[in-house]
Amino acid sequence: MKTHVYGVILAGGSGTRFWPLSRERFPKQLLRIIGEGTLLQQTFERLIQHIVPKQMTVVTNETQAESIRLQLHEWKDDLAENIILEPEGRNTAPAIALTALQLMHRDPEAVMVVVPADHVVKSPKKFMKAVQFATKLAAQGHLVTFGIHPSRPETGYGYIQPNKRKRVGSQGPFVGYSVARFVEKPDLSTASRYCRSGNYFWNSGIFVWKAATILEELALQQPKLSKILRGLGRQVGTSEFSVVLRKAYAKMPSLSIDHAVMEHSARSVVVPVDFGWSDVGSWGSLEDVAPLDKDGNVRNGNIIDIGSRQSVLFADRRLVATIGLDNMVVVDTPDATLVCTKDRAQDVKAIVSLLKQQQAPEHLEHRTVQRPWGAYTVLEEGSRYKVKRIEVVPGKRLSLQLHHQRSEHWVVITGTARVTRGEEVYDLQPGMSTGIPKETPHRLENPGTTLLEIIEIQNGPYLGEDDIVRLKDDFGRLQPVK
Amino acid sequence: MKTHVYGVILAGGSGTRFWPLSRERFPKQLLRIIGEGTLLQQTFERLIQHIVPKQMTVVTNETQAESIRLQLHEWKDDLAENIILEPEGRNTAPAIALTALQLMHRDPEAVMVVVPADHVVKSPKKFMKAVQFATKLAAQGHLVTFGIHPSRPETGYGYIQPNKRKRVGSQGPFVGYSVARFVEKPDLSTASRYCRSGNYFWNSGIFVWKAATILEELALQQPKLSKILRGLGRQVGTSEFSVVLRKAYAKMPSLSIDHAVMEHSARSVVVPVDFGWSDVGSWGSLEDVAPLDKDGNVRNGNIIDIGSRQSVLFADRRLVATIGLDNMVVVDTPDATLVCTKDRAQDVKAIVSLLKQQQAPEHLEHRTVQRPWGAYTVLEEGSRYKVKRIEVVPGKRLSLQLHHQRSEHWVVITGTARVTRGEEVYDLQPGMSTGIPKETPHRLENPGTTLLEIIEIQNGPYLGEDDIVRLKDDFGRLQPVK
Repeated sequence: MKTHVYGVILAGGSGTRFWPLSRERFPKQLLRIIGEGTLLQQTFERLIQHIVPKQMTVVTNETQAESIRLQLHEWKDDLAENIILEPEGRNTAPAIALTALQLMHRDPEAVMVVVPADHVVKSPKKFMKAVQFATKLAAQGHLVTFGIHPSRPETGYGYIQPNKRKRVGSQGPFVGYSVARFVEKPDLSTASRYCRSGNYFWNSGIFVWKAATILEELALQQPKLSKILRGLGRQVGTSEFSVVLRKAYAKMPSLSIDHAVMEHSARSVVVPVDFGWSDVGSWGSLEDVAPLDKDGNVRNGNIIDIGSRQSVLFADRRLVATIGLDNMVVVDTPDATLVCTKDRAQDVKAIVSLLKQQQAPEHLEHRTVQRPWGAYTVLEEGSRYKVKRIEVVPGKRLSLQLHHQRSEHWVVITGTARVTRGEEVYDLQPGMSTGIPKETPHRLENPGTTLLEIIEIQNGPYLGEDDIVRLKDDFGRLQPVK
Repeated sequence: MKTHVYGVILAGGSGTRFWPLSRERFPKQLLRIIGEGTLLQQTFERLIQHIVPKQMTVVTNETQAESIRLQLHEWKDDLAENIILEPEGRNTAPAIALTALQLMHRDPEAVMVVVPADHVVKSPKKFMKAVQFATKLAAQGHLVTFGIHPSRPETGYGYIQPNKRKRVGSQGPFVGYSVARFVEKPDLSTASRYCRSGNYFWNSGIFVWKAATILEELALQQPKLSKILRGLGRQVGTSEFSVVLRKAYAKMPSLSIDHAVMEHSARSVVVPVDFGWSDVGSWGSLEDVAPLDKDGNVRNGNIIDIGSRQSVLFADRRLVATIGLDNMVVVDTPDATLVCTKDRAQDVKAIVSLLKQQQAPEHLEHRTVQRPWGAYTVLEEGSRYKVKRIEVVPGKRLSLQLHHQRSEHWVVITGTARVTRGEEVYDLQPGMSTGIPKETPHRLENPGTTLLEIIEIQNGPYLGEDDIVRLKDDFGRLQPVK
């Protein structure tokens, strides 16, 4: 049985609620906000305890693919096969449908364990036991979802009411019930009533089903989407597929799988579980899953505090001093700081919208940007100049490139730099420097076994990332940089 | 009469209550926290409307002298005569005594208007009218201080009770009363009683008296201090003075002029005034003097806010986003951020003590440090490297110097750099660079008419400011840099 089980991680989200730690180009799943590793890495680790890495799939989009590959570097060569790239985000139904289609092609008996990349599970063991039970129900043709006992009248989640008289199976602590109904995010008084009744569960967004079952149900419930899928299905595995996919996605409705299928299907089943789940939906919710100090604070980074309580204090290397805070959120990053009351943490969305309107860079990306060869950090930008620290991991090199509008100077601070400048190739040690005139093809490489770090000073009238003309690249990035 | 009036600005303070905007080496009087110019510059401007610049004196200490000279650059050549350097801080009594001594030497009829450098006065016109009245009383031998009508039961100030039956003079709205008593910082219930009684005033710390009078009273009330002073007095104007002064200060008691004289003297007079005074003693008190937005917030810099009220939001170029704050203080600087409730703003002192204990650099100075030739900003520090942006004002140059432990690379970003390296002298334009090996004498100069900005990358095992060997300097700084 186990060999037919496939892990499917939905990693297309671009949430704004963890700004300024998350950015449009660096969403929540890529963040290290609790425990070891990022949420994506933790999700991956949780699943590969029981699912062979070859049967893991990550569904994402082009903007995030590079960061995801970097975070899952253990995958290495198997990677290309295991990442499904959506041409654009269309909510969960198309992402799941596309994955089901591809899995059916590989294994008609495939059972999919569909999990969002950005949730926290405190007990991975309990989680996998629940998955094992759900897998059995799935093999019988059920569409299984996990229900979480509500601990508070949360209005940000959907709720599921089981039909307690229709048990579809049980094992140890687990029982599967037919679903009586799904309820969209309720208002506070309804949510309170649900909590008191004890007969409603939070919708965890985790699903277990056969690829065949979900495709059958999609055909039944979503004829339009299903028709597009059938067209796509004929091209799976062909060289035309990516072109066809792009066209198909342009026509695809944006729809959640709950709306598309679960709410209408007679095969929907809920299994109440207790594995310490949280979707960490906002800074305020971090206290549910993170370790607390004796005053109930979540603390991270260079914080010096006097007498704060029940607060989320999240810093990095810069110093943040706090005094007497009560139920507050303070998040400090190199280019932006957020200070808000915990009960208004959801309004971070509004801040991000304002920044987007103002075209402020602080909504889009961080000062440190990951690249397949390492990373760069913008230290300072002014009119006609920009200063970056560039890190190149051992054995990697940037593209061979040139700039029309700027010259660059490089000063090595650690490691060895191999520089290509025009026809010349030479090595620089720490304390050595070189200048790259504009229009000159050049390349930076780390031929050593330790990290290479350089300071780059750019000079010129225009310093955008799109003034990079790539002539050769190890990572297939020959289009203009976005 | 007017020609005998001298302005004395006490600028030795090193307060910690405006951290992180103030630092040990950059105290409150040097800050631009409200209006145009720094508090010191505003104080200076206020006085020179009525006192000729040649009769202005600033009392400070060596750590701050350079910054103060920079801020009062309009003084130019007269400067040396007008700054009195204390060898070390000894509270207000020694500073005032020393100044009185020097003024007596210049003009036995001198009347001193003594003002702290870091207070705010909303109505400079009313202030000078009050000074004119006080000057008359001072000429009659009174020790005059201004009393402020208390607007709240402040426990951080001293209070003065006038003897309403002993009027020593009056003119227009002003009346001078003999002082019944001075009260040290009272507790809250006492302060509340004083406020209600209408017969107590805040001690403003501004004094007007003849130099001769205060020296006479010091002789009467502080025989020990006075004996030291008499010894000093014989050396005023001699070449020995600075050596003798250092010795004298080592023996001087640390004492406030209130304690030393005002509380005991029969000549103490209080003039109630109403010129919009504030000592802006903490971030919380800023709302008394700064303009407020419609929700009662003090706002400065790159702030994006949703729904905050009655808060002090103080940022610089970095983005600070705030939501729903109520009576909070948020202060952001390039290397440190403070978040506290307004009623605990005084506890910033405790934060600074903690930082001092930990030897954290954030209590001592800013990332941007002023120098007589311009300024530098540390963009990043790592093990074995440091990146600075250096600004040199037109016509100025750094010292001719060398470093034993580091090489440097300079890349020009704006203006023209004239570089001395060993025996060579050459000019660099924006986009050009040069390297300075360790042990090589070098100098950076701005020969142009616009600001010169360069990026400097230092490489080496030790990068402290004390590895600067100065060979020549336009500013007389040939000792090691502190």
